[in-house]
Amino acid sequence: MSERVAGNNLLERVHEFVGNDLDEAERIFYAELECGHPYVTDILSQITQFRGKRLRPILLLLTARACGEVTRDHTVLAAVVEMIHVATLVHDDVLDEAETRRHVATVNTRWNNETSVLFGDYLFTHAFHLASSLESTLACRLIGRATNVVCVGEMSQIHERGNLDLTETEYLRIIEGKTAELCSVCCRLGAQFADVDSETVDAMDQYGRNLGIAFQIADDLLDVLGDERQIGKSLGTDLAQLKLTLPLIRLLEQSEPDAAMRIRELLERADERTSYELEPYLKLSDAVVYAQQRANQFATDARQYLHCLPDSPARQILEEMADFASQRSF
Amino acid sequence: MSERVAGNNLLERVHEFVGNDLDEAERIFYAELECGHPYVTDILSQITQFRGKRLRPILLLLTARACGEVTRDHTVLAAVVEMIHVATLVHDDVLDEAETRRHVATVNTRWNNETSVLFGDYLFTHAFHLASSLESTLACRLIGRATNVVCVGEMSQIHERGNLDLTETEYLRIIEGKTAELCSVCCRLGAQFADVDSETVDAMDQYGRNLGIAFQIADDLLDVLGDERQIGKSLGTDLAQLKLTLPLIRLLEQSEPDAAMRIRELLERADERTSYELEPYLKLSDAVVYAQQRANQFATDARQYLHCLPDSPARQILEEMADFASQRSF
Repeated sequence: MSERVAGNNLLERVHEFVGNDLDEAERIFYAELECGHPYVTDILSQITQFRGKRLRPILLLLTARACGEVTRDHTVLAAVVEMIHVATLVHDDVLDEAETRRHVATVNTRWNNETSVLFGDYLFTHAFHLASSLESTLACRLIGRATNVVCVGEMSQIHERGNLDLTETEYLRIIEGKTAELCSVCCRLGAQFADVDSETVDAMDQYGRNLGIAFQIADDLLDVLGDERQIGKSLGTDLAQLKLTLPLIRLLEQSEPDAAMRIRELLERADERTSYELEPYLKLSDAVVYAQQRANQFATDARQYLHCLPDSPARQILEEMADFASQRSF
Repeated sequence: MSERVAGNNLLERVHEFVGNDLDEAERIFYAELECGHPYVTDILSQITQFRGKRLRPILLLLTARACGEVTRDHTVLAAVVEMIHVATLVHDDVLDEAETRRHVATVNTRWNNETSVLFGDYLFTHAFHLASSLESTLACRLIGRATNVVCVGEMSQIHERGNLDLTETEYLRIIEGKTAELCSVCCRLGAQFADVDSETVDAMDQYGRNLGIAFQIADDLLDVLGDERQIGKSLGTDLAQLKLTLPLIRLLEQSEPDAAMRIRELLERADERTSYELEPYLKLSDAVVYAQQRANQFATDARQYLHCLPDSPARQILEEMADFASQRSF
């Protein structure tokens, strides 16, 4: 069975299991964002087409189920985290000057950068507005803290652009902020609102964090390897923007001085040929294998944190999700 | 006494009256935003230089004082609304491609657009994070609702760009969203957290709303008239971006068909000469006077809403602030 088929099977089981809750989160998502302004409705229907597999609400709802019952608060929060995620996508597409996402024109392409910036803001403010419909400030506080960290992660990435001496540790800190923090708070919210003890809440946080890191390493690997069919967005953007990711960090670290110098030159004048020109160096090195192994290791660590939960179908799906995140096949 | 001097006198009295609370709000503002990341600290010190007179926290604190006592919640909320306001400024400067604000380089000029988008997001998420430190979700809900409206107002403005048939009613709806809503929620928060009755809270909301509209009309007038010394930012940006504002709406409405056609042509191919070329048309019409009168009327309406409050120095300052907002002299 190919990874793609296995990924689809997993998603089918997710939908069998928390499909109704996901549908309810979808209803809440659109009810919150629909404001009767035709212009906003148009943008909403555009983003609906590139929203993808809804990893973050799925994580939140599955964690809730693995820890107890899915409540109304959980479905509201699933809509909130999806809103935050889509806000970061919309702003990322401005930053990356991306033209398509999942084969659909981005907001900046279909409309313009101004609309993207403002619509991203609209998603952020609605997310917090929706989170504040819960009884306590807890969700707002947790989501506020997590999104603060996400923004610093993203800013650090911009700041480190062009730094060819970025270390693996620094890289991991950046992706922990920009990607893993939101996955982590999804699982924390799922657990916390299911009323489990604080050790379990922390373990779920760590599960989401490790899964998020695995997911981002796999995503960065895809950017280097290039498979536009698979993710349907403009590729090699990390290269074009001189964002150093794990396979390249490893490649530079492990190459002989002459080769390393040549690779640095290629990276410094990155263009559409760079990916092609880097290929032989990548093939001669262990960079791709190493990055994949690191992703797998984070996935394994993620699974370990599930051991405190009783065995259940929800827990089993969470275990498989960690592996699939590291393979980036859903 | 010139308006400028009177404005400075008013500000001195504001600072005598709620200066300590404003200072406390400043401390909370920086404590919330400082994250130990040198890159963020640098951006923070840059925005400190163009932040201006802090109209929104002043409105919140003065309303609180006029309604009762300034509490810890008020100073926290004063920091929150300032954060929201600065977030919109930082994003506006990206949208407007503005190079300076109050004679200081904007974030997009000193760093880049990516940093501006992300730093604006950082301000938004910290604002909500800080608001969620209060005991109840009330502030998050009110601020969430207001910022939702602000974003729609800003998007509508982008959407209507180039529409030379924009009516006064449509223009007023846009500025009510993009500017007046935040002023209005400042006054609402000031009143609500001072525990006055709901009629007084609504009246304070209306005071802020009318003041905000007056303020924006005066600001738009300044953009047309052009006085770079006074506000220290790139001018004529509304013209350059084909944003129709009240003086131009009135000018088009009141001009004879031939003149109106010529003005439309000037607006459609707007460049740095447009302001100069429009001057004779503006001088021959009542457009500037009309726009100023409308601003004054909203200021007068704002003052009316203060009548439900007992007479006090705080109320007197609020009354004067409405007038000064319509003159845009502070």
